Amino acid sequence: MESSPAAVRLAARDGRWEGSTAGHCPQHQQANLVILPAAEAAEFASFCSRNPKPCPVIEITPPGDPEPRLSAPGADLRTDVPGYRVYRRGAPVEKRPDIRELWRDDLVAFLLGCSFTFEHALAEAGVELRHVKRFTTVPMFVSSLRCVTAGRFAGPMVVTMRPIKSEQLPLVLQLSARYPHAHGSPVHVGDPALIGIRDLGRLDYGDAVDMEPDDVPVFWACGVTPQAIAKEAAAELMITHEPGRMFLTDLPREVAP
Amino acid sequence: MESSPAAVRLAARDGRWEGSTAGHCPQHQQANLVILPAAEAAEFASFCSRNPKPCPVIEITPPGDPEPRLSAPGADLRTDVPGYRVYRRGAPVEKRPDIRELWRDDLVAFLLGCSFTFEHALAEAGVELRHVKRFTTVPMFVSSLRCVTAGRFAGPMVVTMRPIKSEQLPLVLQLSARYPHAHGSPVHVGDPALIGIRDLGRLDYGDAVDMEPDDVPVFWACGVTPQAIAKEAAAELMITHEPGRMFLTDLPREVAP
Repeated sequence: MESSPAAVRLAARDGRWEGSTAGHCPQHQQANLVILPAAEAAEFASFCSRNPKPCPVIEITPPGDPEPRLSAPGADLRTDVPGYRVYRRGAPVEKRPDIRELWRDDLVAFLLGCSFTFEHALAEAGVELRHVKRFTTVPMFVSSLRCVTAGRFAGPMVVTMRPIKSEQLPLVLQLSARYPHAHGSPVHVGDPALIGIRDLGRLDYGDAVDMEPDDVPVFWACGVTPQAIAKEAAAELMITHEPGRMFLTDLPREVAP
Repeated sequence: MESSPAAVRLAARDGRWEGSTAGHCPQHQQANLVILPAAEAAEFASFCSRNPKPCPVIEITPPGDPEPRLSAPGADLRTDVPGYRVYRRGAPVEKRPDIRELWRDDLVAFLLGCSFTFEHALAEAGVELRHVKRFTTVPMFVSSLRCVTAGRFAGPMVVTMRPIKSEQLPLVLQLSARYPHAHGSPVHVGDPALIGIRDLGRLDYGDAVDMEPDDVPVFWACGVTPQAIAKEAAAELMITHEPGRMFLTDLPREVAP
């Protein structure tokens, strides 16, 4: 495990780190990555502005410039993520360790907040995160909550679910609300059916977790949402990070950009 | 003075209100307006993301759609602002009561937070705002603080100055920090020379205010910044609100979007 965001980025750039970034650099913000051509980027920026819970904008880069000057000066978004996925017209076409050869003068990168950021704060406050304890990926569901539409970008919100002990609910609600730049407070607490989830055992992404007697299911807006929506919109080209392999920013965990 | 944001917007649409929106609807957020062609909008979205103090994004509309669905569903940004200014290649070319005839399928509107929003909160807490008391426009200066560059969009930060009684400084700092969606906490307190302002009597925009013995000059990032920067960048077309004639949103004052 590398000691600083810059060290993780360099390890990704040099091909020494292709793994998950969960647990790395707990004092810094991690970010989801969505890269789109400028022709589609203005519409996607609109979508993010209208859906800040699933799409909290950390930074948008200008067309053609892969350096996130605000959140990680000197970094290169073409190489500094441990893994990339490439989609064309909505279809996944390849996975790559870097995207130097795919870079174009019209590409715009969106760095969007990630729940890893607030999970560190919950864990430090004594909240057990079951998927972390089990070394699995957080369970994710396509909910019946609708995102606010922006042009071609439209669809349901993807949510994560974490089982929380009922006596820790107030702590969890208050703590996560301090991280609006990382999805913030939950979008739902309790009965999954109220947001269109019939069975907590039937996930759309991630791994199932066991529910214990005193658990309440708590749902947060998920950073997978913008990728799922952009995929549906069948953008000419979309490049994202490999799930779980986030971009490490230099921004301190607590501070909205 | 109209009673609701929708009533102010309708009065602007019908040509019954062409005046300042200062003091209107104190419980709701007001917004600066910058409209650009999609070709320039992705780069400007990058600039806003890198400079959240002068450019707090309330909403970005998708190309061609003038309805701000998040912040004022049903409103029309082509008609619902009391006055518009039109720039071509950076040069002011006309003022208009509406922009229906100029609207195009590629235009993107940026609604950015406005200090009117936090001024209401300061006034309610007993802070005297001298420019409000004198019925003048807040003094504005081009500071030596640099914005973070995004492509063609580059330049200095424009700041507003409000004289604050020293014993009210802690109150003012704490209150304004609660409004990150309206420029938030000050960018400087005290000696103007430290941010490149040699003489408080030599303004760049607005009207001068008298300084009293116990006053401390307090400086906030100003919503004029993005317009000044976009003007310098000489966008093919830029449309903004007439200064002081803001767009009234339905968003409650206290809530970041």
